[in-house]
Amino acid sequence: MGSIDTSNLKIGFIAGGQLAKMLIQKASQWDLETYILDPDNRCASQGLTNHFMQGDFKDENTVYNFGKQVDILTFEIESINVNGLKRLVKEGVKVIPHPDILEMIQDKGLQKTFFEKHHFPTAAFRYFDDKSDIIKSINEGSLTFPFVQKARKGGYDGRGVSIIHSQNDLENILDTPSVVEEAVSIAKEISVIVARNKQGEIQSFPIVEMIFDPKANLVKELACPAKISIEQEKKARDIAHQLIEKMDMVGLLAIEFFIDTKGDIFINEMAPRPHNSGHHTIESNITSQYEQLLRAVLDMPLGSTKMLSPAVMINLLGDPNHEGAVHYENLEKVMAIEGAHVHLYGKKITRPFRKMGHVTITDNNLENALAKAEKIHQLLKVTSWKTDR
Amino acid sequence: MGSIDTSNLKIGFIAGGQLAKMLIQKASQWDLETYILDPDNRCASQGLTNHFMQGDFKDENTVYNFGKQVDILTFEIESINVNGLKRLVKEGVKVIPHPDILEMIQDKGLQKTFFEKHHFPTAAFRYFDDKSDIIKSINEGSLTFPFVQKARKGGYDGRGVSIIHSQNDLENILDTPSVVEEAVSIAKEISVIVARNKQGEIQSFPIVEMIFDPKANLVKELACPAKISIEQEKKARDIAHQLIEKMDMVGLLAIEFFIDTKGDIFINEMAPRPHNSGHHTIESNITSQYEQLLRAVLDMPLGSTKMLSPAVMINLLGDPNHEGAVHYENLEKVMAIEGAHVHLYGKKITRPFRKMGHVTITDNNLENALAKAEKIHQLLKVTSWKTDR
Repeated sequence: MGSIDTSNLKIGFIAGGQLAKMLIQKASQWDLETYILDPDNRCASQGLTNHFMQGDFKDENTVYNFGKQVDILTFEIESINVNGLKRLVKEGVKVIPHPDILEMIQDKGLQKTFFEKHHFPTAAFRYFDDKSDIIKSINEGSLTFPFVQKARKGGYDGRGVSIIHSQNDLENILDTPSVVEEAVSIAKEISVIVARNKQGEIQSFPIVEMIFDPKANLVKELACPAKISIEQEKKARDIAHQLIEKMDMVGLLAIEFFIDTKGDIFINEMAPRPHNSGHHTIESNITSQYEQLLRAVLDMPLGSTKMLSPAVMINLLGDPNHEGAVHYENLEKVMAIEGAHVHLYGKKITRPFRKMGHVTITDNNLENALAKAEKIHQLLKVTSWKTDR
Repeated sequence: MGSIDTSNLKIGFIAGGQLAKMLIQKASQWDLETYILDPDNRCASQGLTNHFMQGDFKDENTVYNFGKQVDILTFEIESINVNGLKRLVKEGVKVIPHPDILEMIQDKGLQKTFFEKHHFPTAAFRYFDDKSDIIKSINEGSLTFPFVQKARKGGYDGRGVSIIHSQNDLENILDTPSVVEEAVSIAKEISVIVARNKQGEIQSFPIVEMIFDPKANLVKELACPAKISIEQEKKARDIAHQLIEKMDMVGLLAIEFFIDTKGDIFINEMAPRPHNSGHHTIESNITSQYEQLLRAVLDMPLGSTKMLSPAVMINLLGDPNHEGAVHYENLEKVMAIEGAHVHLYGKKITRPFRKMGHVTITDNNLENALAKAEKIHQLLKVTSWKTDR
């Protein structure tokens, strides 16, 4: 901790998207010197970071060369070359979370094996090498519909996941090493973000509920606190605390859970970094997820995760019919809504469904916050000045 | 407002100290492109701004040349060359607040005349041209002890103010054009920050009380809400609203008041910019003073100033016995206190009494927050790694 107060502590973030941007907004409050590695020199955090390096974080030497400039390295994305990170650890750079943890999480198969080995509740699963392997099991009758296929590597934001309901969906089977899970009858999806520091202190945030648009089958908004029973809340937080401890992980871990129609809780997957389901903590908790990660990487005491008020968070996605220089319609009307906190990531070009920003709505009453969110859904559109495609 | 959503709106701040830094932290949330003018290329906001220009904001051409680069210009300091700002207004740059208002506020004599003309309560006063003019009035018996002398121009942070109790203090009389006020028997000092936008909407923040260290006679901490009567609160907020309206001002105005031993309220002085007495709003109010100023300059609806929790703010001043590369003692112990929000401005060198940062303590109970502040006063010292002088 000593060196933080000389204002000379150099902290590196791999990838410069919105999560890194919000990390830097907080890091600047403590006067840390920030470094970003990203292939895109117009990424969200490019204008805010003290130092920017353009490069591919999937390349070992690029990761290594970037990391050699800093004292502490952390990340906002999973798909990083782990060998580069491991070389840095050997040479004394503090990489948090540890690359071994990232390596395990990068492979959904290893994640599932870890859950099973340590008796964490997760849907039953099998490994498959490729598409033909899956087809063979279906034909033999050892694999029955419906099931969920998850690519072992490279998936995120719903990509790399295929739900196979019947013979008619066979064309959607991914031809890659994968994990195939029993399809759980999902009643709710929730998320817990938990942090752990070097001293072993653990803190988790109040539970967030993902609310789906029944028509589009997309996450419409996230609400905190989740509408679940006290027992379910306790169980999910207990699992989160046990999981981060069992992994002996320092850093921030976001865990997504299913609750099935019987009320049982299953771990879906996890991410060792700040998470979309924690954006609202900037305004609605004493400590935000971003500050919490910085506290963990700096060997600081963790902050209180107490809720200041309920919150709803909606992602601002690029309108499906627009592409080009971004325009936020009705922004000023949204800004007039009490407790609406607008975050624009600074991506200059909108594309269909691209995450361009988010709005967190805080209100002492969650139902009011949900009603305000509905109004914002109606008002705010991310379109393009230039062209309707 | 239209151009904000192209991410191409350029906003300039004159001076790059901690107030500008906190403005930029918020501006980055809306993806505004930020420009700073400051003589010091190691100023607090240098590393965070998109564009930095080193230069003297007391020089007309420097101000003009800086302002020509931006769409909107605002400031965090009063001592700016007003002619430069006026030329910019003539050429279509949006300068907020208007330079005429800054010009009036730069001169404590014009401020007092404005208060008097519009019947705002302020201590009785007279103008003097120089020291000999004051001595003459004392000798003639038309000016009696005790009195307060304020330099008409250039004073800030207590500089440019002299309290003359008796003949023994004559050497402390400033030899400059000044305003001399009747010494009010001060029971309390409070501050109100009020904002107004182009549409004429007005919002003020809950009132802040300055708490003095009785020994050092310095502001020890600021607390919100102030411990005053409901009538006093209403009166101070009413004055603030009337004052910003009467000035026809767009922007943020901080007004410092005295409450005398009879309970009457007097305006002490005002500043047309974010203010030390509003730092806590970052964590303790729905909208911070920084966001409120940005909303006003962007012609946005003003934000809600509702308090989320009581707050105490303490300035981190350089220890009187240290100068050199800064070191914050016991920072990690302070970070362990629930609701302690540490802000380090990033000044590399500490000097006696230099403002190096602040800590805001939020707590549902103001007395608890004050107790935590006391603990932080004991713990946190701003010293130097290198040398005790």
